[in-house]
Amino acid sequence: MKRPLILVTNDDGITAPGIRALVSVARELGDVVVVAPDSPQSGMGHAITVSDPIRLHPSDVYEGIEAYECSGTPVDCVKLAKHIVLKDRKPDLCVSGINHGSNASINIIYSGTLSAAMEASLEGIPSIGFSLLDYSHNAHFEPAKPFVKQLMEYVLAHGLEEGSLLNVNIPNLEEGQIKGLRVCRQAEARWDEEFTVAEDPRGQKYYWLTGRFVNEDKGDDTDIWALQNDYVSVVPSMHDLTNYRAFKSLKALESL
Amino acid sequence: MKRPLILVTNDDGITAPGIRALVSVARELGDVVVVAPDSPQSGMGHAITVSDPIRLHPSDVYEGIEAYECSGTPVDCVKLAKHIVLKDRKPDLCVSGINHGSNASINIIYSGTLSAAMEASLEGIPSIGFSLLDYSHNAHFEPAKPFVKQLMEYVLAHGLEEGSLLNVNIPNLEEGQIKGLRVCRQAEARWDEEFTVAEDPRGQKYYWLTGRFVNEDKGDDTDIWALQNDYVSVVPSMHDLTNYRAFKSLKALESL
Repeated sequence: MKRPLILVTNDDGITAPGIRALVSVARELGDVVVVAPDSPQSGMGHAITVSDPIRLHPSDVYEGIEAYECSGTPVDCVKLAKHIVLKDRKPDLCVSGINHGSNASINIIYSGTLSAAMEASLEGIPSIGFSLLDYSHNAHFEPAKPFVKQLMEYVLAHGLEEGSLLNVNIPNLEEGQIKGLRVCRQAEARWDEEFTVAEDPRGQKYYWLTGRFVNEDKGDDTDIWALQNDYVSVVPSMHDLTNYRAFKSLKALESL
Repeated sequence: MKRPLILVTNDDGITAPGIRALVSVARELGDVVVVAPDSPQSGMGHAITVSDPIRLHPSDVYEGIEAYECSGTPVDCVKLAKHIVLKDRKPDLCVSGINHGSNASINIIYSGTLSAAMEASLEGIPSIGFSLLDYSHNAHFEPAKPFVKQLMEYVLAHGLEEGSLLNVNIPNLEEGQIKGLRVCRQAEARWDEEFTVAEDPRGQKYYWLTGRFVNEDKGDDTDIWALQNDYVSVVPSMHDLTNYRAFKSLKALESL
């Protein structure tokens, strides 16, 4: 039987521990091609590089695996993978991550990890973005691996609805403490932000973003609820931002 | 009566003709504060600056108007406007644009213009992203202005559903040729992309993104349809990317 082709990317850069963990699971399930940023790209959202050239170089980070590092954003990586690296080879699955830190709730719109997965879904490739709720470089990915594998196997076997992706977040727990998977909606949470203000060595003022995540969504069907209750959260996501509920009230606009 | 407070931003940079047109309309309707990027930020999507300091400087580009230029992304501009510039003054409306070029359909996810508007909507500020279907620096914004004004007046008078924003695209037509406003859904269109491959002066290969917009959505309720039929398209949009339709088929995951 032909082994599936799995495209792996991320936003923390090609050498991050999270993508190494993801590659180690992916290579058990299929033939792997890695195209990932050559430097960390956190918070890049769905940014693309349009005003500058992009570089793409083969990488020998992963022994026995075809890998490339790219100077662009996570979304650029997926576009280059499709058009330059893979060309006529269409991946059966794209996985992005494992991100160091949560991409639950509203974080999906700021996340390079999830934007890469969404870009793949726009190209008709079933895709999953994985994140572990541990921001440290030395995050412990082992307990996450069985769930990562399970979800990849599921999507390889069943596919996903056209244009759909999964936003998967994994609680930072030891093996055996994670209770299972929950299919959820994106919680209505937000960032309560502030800026650190300081002066640089030349006396010029600068601002640095910082903030605190606030969940005011009391639903027990959200990703935040699942994570707080020791489940892996799985949010089926897509790229249609239309707010269909607002149509009725706005119809008056048409007779202005 | 107290004049409304209107926050103006964009992604083409504080001196772009499009934001000048927007400011000229906004100042007729209220007190205006401008916080916009100091350089073009097209294609930045919902990127935020987390690993670097951000600069913010007063600008005298707009006579008699409080304005600031920011070294960050469009989303950074909105965050700095809220937390540093405005503090206790909450805007009644945020407008972003007028973008030089379409942000209809899938372009919303790559667009700095719309991401700035979405960021404002996340902060509870009713917001509108405006785009004109003319990519040139010398784009002719005059015919767009009456529609821009009409929509700003409507949202100032009626507000928008919490967390909602409007993605407004304006056809590139002469005055009198635009038929009116249409409330639409985001068309299911996509980019058919390729990369230009070339060598730099040092013989190193580079890639440059290019592409062609393809609409395969035949619906007459989409933004692309409206624009092709000489209407201004108004897509009510939001930040919830949950694909609710996919829940049923994915429930099986919970019993894995």
